[in-house]
Amino acid sequence: MGLRIALDAMGGDHAPGEIVKGAIEAAEELDLQILLVGRPDAIEPLLAEASASARSRLDIVAASEVIAMDESPATALRKKKDASIVVATRLVKEGRAQALVSAGSTGAQMAASLLGLGRISGIDRPAIATILPTLEGGKLLLDVGANSEAKPRNLLQFAHMGSIYAEKVMGIANPRVALLNIGEEETKGNELVLGAYGMLREAPLRFIGNVEGRDLFFGRADVIVCDGFVGNVVLKFGEGMVSALKTMIKDELKNSRMAQVGAFLATPALRGMGKRLDYAEYGGAPLLGVNGVSIICHGSSKAKAIKNALRVARQGVQQNFIAAIQEHIPGKVEPVC
Amino acid sequence: MGLRIALDAMGGDHAPGEIVKGAIEAAEELDLQILLVGRPDAIEPLLAEASASARSRLDIVAASEVIAMDESPATALRKKKDASIVVATRLVKEGRAQALVSAGSTGAQMAASLLGLGRISGIDRPAIATILPTLEGGKLLLDVGANSEAKPRNLLQFAHMGSIYAEKVMGIANPRVALLNIGEEETKGNELVLGAYGMLREAPLRFIGNVEGRDLFFGRADVIVCDGFVGNVVLKFGEGMVSALKTMIKDELKNSRMAQVGAFLATPALRGMGKRLDYAEYGGAPLLGVNGVSIICHGSSKAKAIKNALRVARQGVQQNFIAAIQEHIPGKVEPVC
Repeated sequence: MGLRIALDAMGGDHAPGEIVKGAIEAAEELDLQILLVGRPDAIEPLLAEASASARSRLDIVAASEVIAMDESPATALRKKKDASIVVATRLVKEGRAQALVSAGSTGAQMAASLLGLGRISGIDRPAIATILPTLEGGKLLLDVGANSEAKPRNLLQFAHMGSIYAEKVMGIANPRVALLNIGEEETKGNELVLGAYGMLREAPLRFIGNVEGRDLFFGRADVIVCDGFVGNVVLKFGEGMVSALKTMIKDELKNSRMAQVGAFLATPALRGMGKRLDYAEYGGAPLLGVNGVSIICHGSSKAKAIKNALRVARQGVQQNFIAAIQEHIPGKVEPVC
Repeated sequence: MGLRIALDAMGGDHAPGEIVKGAIEAAEELDLQILLVGRPDAIEPLLAEASASARSRLDIVAASEVIAMDESPATALRKKKDASIVVATRLVKEGRAQALVSAGSTGAQMAASLLGLGRISGIDRPAIATILPTLEGGKLLLDVGANSEAKPRNLLQFAHMGSIYAEKVMGIANPRVALLNIGEEETKGNELVLGAYGMLREAPLRFIGNVEGRDLFFGRADVIVCDGFVGNVVLKFGEGMVSALKTMIKDELKNSRMAQVGAFLATPALRGMGKRLDYAEYGGAPLLGVNGVSIICHGSSKAKAIKNALRVARQGVQQNFIAAIQEHIPGKVEPVC
C-alpha cells in the first residue's frame, strides 16, 4: 500500500472547493493516496473534474462537522467529536494515514494533534516551523505561533527539531542554527534569548550565534529560532509587506502608461520574483514535536498551496523526520531549567 | 535667536562626510542653526562646499573624542567625557541647542540622553519611536529597541507618548492607537500584551485594539505599540526585506533583456515606490520619554537621512511635544503595577 495522507477537506477560507482542487492536482502529479475528510455531499461533486487516474488516488472519509476559524479550539474539540480535523487526526493515530494536512483553524489542529498524536518524549512544547523565502532559498523559522510564551529550554528544543527537519526534509546538510535577536553580540537581547544563547552554544548543533531581523532574507542561517510571539509577528509582517507591495505596484502603474508597458515587458521577471516570495510555493508548515506528521496550511490557502502542502507531507513521511526527532532529542536535551 | 540643533558630526558609518553633507543640505533648505559637534579639523574642510548662506547657519563645536558603534555605552560615557555625543547632549541640557541628532551608537545616545537630559516625570522607560511607511502614509511604531524587556505599564506609557507625538509632530488628529499582537482577539497574546490590553482599554486614548503583523503596512492604526525586542526585530526585518527585494529585482533583470527595457520604462514608478519604502525619507527616530528632543538616526545614514532627521528635530521643537508629554503623562498614568 502506498503512502496515505489525510486532508481536512473542510478547513480553510476556500474550503472545500480549493482544498479538493489542490488534492486533485496533487493526485495527478504525486504518487500518493489522499483521504479527503469531510462531508461527502460537499466533496463528491467536486471530484467530477478529476481524471480517472487522479480519481483512483482520492478517497472520501466522512466527517459531519467542521470547526470554524473563530471557535475556541478546546471547546470545539470537546463538542465536535466528528469534526473533519478530529477525524483526519484519528486516521493518522490509527495508522490509516501517515500524515495530516489542514488549512482550518490552527489552534484546533494543534490541539487535535497534541491530543490525538501526543508529544514526542523530551519535547515540552511543539512549534510551528515555516519556510521563509530568502535570497539563498527556503530557510526554516520556528516557532511562528504554537506558543505565545517560551522558556530558553523550549528554544533549545525548537533548535534541535528544526535542525533535524532542515536536514531530513529540506535536504540541508549540517544546517546552521541561529537565534533571532536584536543584535549580533552574545550579550544582547532579553532574558529569554540570553538564556537560550548559553544553552545553544553548549548543544551538539551547528550554532552560529545571533541573527537580526535584517539578516533573515539573506539566508545567513538555515534554521532560525525564536518564540512564537516574535515569529508570528514577523511572519505576518512579511506577508503583509508582500501584499502591500503588490498594491503599491498597482498604484504606481495606474499613474503611468509607460510604466504599464514596462511592467508588461518585465512580466516574466516579476512573476519569477513573485514566485520566490509566494508562501504557497513552499507548502504548509509542519507542527514539530508531535508524534506524527501534521502540516498546517495558511487559512487562505488555494489549490496550489494545498498541493504543495501535500508534497511537503509526503516528503516528511518519506524522510521520516519524526523518527529522527524521537531518536535524537532525549539524549541531547538535558533538563537544565 | 533662531532654532538651534546640535548634530553629532562624528557618529555613524559615514561620518563625518555624509553627516556634514546632510547638515549643509538642511542649512540650504531649512531655517535653523546647526551646531556640528566633533573634531574641527575633520569637519572644517567638509564645509568648503557650503554656500555662503548655508555656511552662516553652520557652527562647529569642538569635541575631541568619538564613541564607536561597538563600545559599551556605559563604559564609553564614563571614559570619554569629551565624546561628540556627550558634548552634543550637553548643548541641549544647557539650553544652547533645542534638539540633538546623531547617527552614532544608539546605546550611547540613549545613555547620554537619559543621563544628560533626564526622564520625563511619570515615564519609567523611554522608547524609540520610528516612522513605518505604510500604504496610508507614515505611522508610528514604538518601542523599536530602547528596551529589550517591558511591562504592561511601559506599553501604556509608550502609547501615551506615541499618541502625543503623532498628534503634535505628525499632525494626525485623534490618533488611533493599537497593540501589536498575534491575533485580533482580546484574549490573544503573551502575558505582556494581555496585561497591556486591559490598561490601554481603560486609558484616555483612542485605543482600537490589537493589530497583527500583516496589518502594519495597511495603516490601520496611527500608533502601534510593542516591546523593544519585537519592535526591533520587525523594523530590521522590514529593512532587510526591502534590501533583499532590490537584490532580487537586479537578479531577475540580469536574466532578461526585455525585463531590462521594461524596468527602464517603469523607472519613475519604481522610484516612486522606492521613495515610499526608504527610511531615509522619514528622517530619524525620536527617543520619547527624555526631557529633550533627541533624534536617533540609522547608523548607515547618508546625507538625505541626516537632512530629514534635522527636519524632524526642528518640527519636534516647534511643536513642543516634550511639553505636551510632560503635561499629559503624570495625571494619566496611574501606578498600576
